[in-house]
Amino acid sequence: MSPDTQTHSLPVVRTIAELQDRLAGWRAAGARIGFVPTMGALHNGHLSLVGLAAEHADKVVVSIFVNPAQFAPHEDLDAYPRTEKEDAEKLAKHAADLIFAPNAKEMYPEGDDLSVHVEGLSEGLESDTRPHFFGGVAAVVTKLFHAVEPDVAVFGEKDYQQLLVVKKLVSDLGLAIEIVAGPTGREADGLAMSSRNAYLSANERKQAPQLFAAITEVAQQIKDGASIAEARDAGLAILQDAGFDPIDYLEVRDAESLAPIDAAVRPARVLVAAKLGTTRLIDNIALEV
Amino acid sequence: MSPDTQTHSLPVVRTIAELQDRLAGWRAAGARIGFVPTMGALHNGHLSLVGLAAEHADKVVVSIFVNPAQFAPHEDLDAYPRTEKEDAEKLAKHAADLIFAPNAKEMYPEGDDLSVHVEGLSEGLESDTRPHFFGGVAAVVTKLFHAVEPDVAVFGEKDYQQLLVVKKLVSDLGLAIEIVAGPTGREADGLAMSSRNAYLSANERKQAPQLFAAITEVAQQIKDGASIAEARDAGLAILQDAGFDPIDYLEVRDAESLAPIDAAVRPARVLVAAKLGTTRLIDNIALEV
Repeated sequence: MSPDTQTHSLPVVRTIAELQDRLAGWRAAGARIGFVPTMGALHNGHLSLVGLAAEHADKVVVSIFVNPAQFAPHEDLDAYPRTEKEDAEKLAKHAADLIFAPNAKEMYPEGDDLSVHVEGLSEGLESDTRPHFFGGVAAVVTKLFHAVEPDVAVFGEKDYQQLLVVKKLVSDLGLAIEIVAGPTGREADGLAMSSRNAYLSANERKQAPQLFAAITEVAQQIKDGASIAEARDAGLAILQDAGFDPIDYLEVRDAESLAPIDAAVRPARVLVAAKLGTTRLIDNIALEV
Repeated sequence: MSPDTQTHSLPVVRTIAELQDRLAGWRAAGARIGFVPTMGALHNGHLSLVGLAAEHADKVVVSIFVNPAQFAPHEDLDAYPRTEKEDAEKLAKHAADLIFAPNAKEMYPEGDDLSVHVEGLSEGLESDTRPHFFGGVAAVVTKLFHAVEPDVAVFGEKDYQQLLVVKKLVSDLGLAIEIVAGPTGREADGLAMSSRNAYLSANERKQAPQLFAAITEVAQQIKDGASIAEARDAGLAILQDAGFDPIDYLEVRDAESLAPIDAAVRPARVLVAAKLGTTRLIDNIALEV
């Protein structure tokens, strides 16, 4: 089929019942189901996750749902970019087989009263700034997992704390779902791809890659023998020079537990979140020692 | 088979893998699976729930798991009665087909870090005294539902707030499980059956039925035209005379939302929790108006 025909043939289902009808047919044919949950506003970072899912599964379901439960009242729920038509066109060209795009009423027929917490991993870092976030994420992911019942699901390393929360959730609930981590997609200048990059002014966009530069510098200094405190100070200086304010956190943590560490003697992760103007950006990289 | 043979033939599985092996065979044969989660120390109240499950299903799985996550450090986790051999004998005579009795390591291989919250229903009443309770209950119930994947599950009205939390959880997660409510089993003198009744001294046991007497009086006075405040005062007097101390709550609430109400114009529930000596007892009854 031509890309155009594909564009028009990628089905979008709006209800869990329709979704499960489609899935039942695929399962009966023995297909392994892959799943990529998104909030839409898709960029190449998302599309690489879809490609990764296709490597691990026969059929790939992509959900597009801007989950109200993970936004606090003052956050950007209403402003969050919604571009479903463009998203569907991109997905049709990238190995997706089905879009599940429910509305809030379908996902939360009786209100979004449910929250799921993973002690330890859900705390600190993102939770300090966004206390509602992981309760809402874990609840909607649990719900989507029940709706899709995938064999494999792909989550991006860009949201590293979320990735660990989801892995622990699957383990704690005993779900038979393989979680595959997708590497962070980056622009040529290093900026991590994010739907929120669209909010940046031209000038902010020029400064934004310093977020990646800062965590790269922290990792490099530690590898070169600096203490975590010294390396962190160097990273903070880069962020301040670039105009990030406030800097919510710039931390070196254990790569599995996200516990604070004194020295990088095991695999660690450098994680950052900071605002440039009104836009909050996050990023992280591995620190192998 | 004689009851004795049945006693010895009721299988007990310890792992989720063994459980799912057994269930797969039943499912393949088209059996509808019923489920009754318990913490063991079974009494006739539990056994009536098992009977109810058998009315709604072809095969009945009973879990026996004293869930550490729903006990606070100062509560009676270690002292909670464990009588598995007697439990198995009782279940063999009461329509159960399989016992699932995992240890904490099987249920929480990586620690009990998960908690599930249902906003509104999880708050107040039991949560005021036991803030850990519903997070732990909802997490273990979610986990057990994933392990058993029952078609129908039976919960007792004795734990009324828990029953509503579980119903909302199933609805919010979109699980295809029918929740059946089992009426509270009572001793001849009205005392609600509970594993914790075993803690009562002979003298406390004589006073304990006043818990039921108090909520019955509250319901009756409201039916006779008293205000909720008047009726509640009469109920509190009965509890105080019987030596209950402290009285954690004696409340008339909306039967569905558990919201506080000014007048019983819709189905309501009278709920009570109070201590007699060191033993905390709860009970509740319907108030139809």
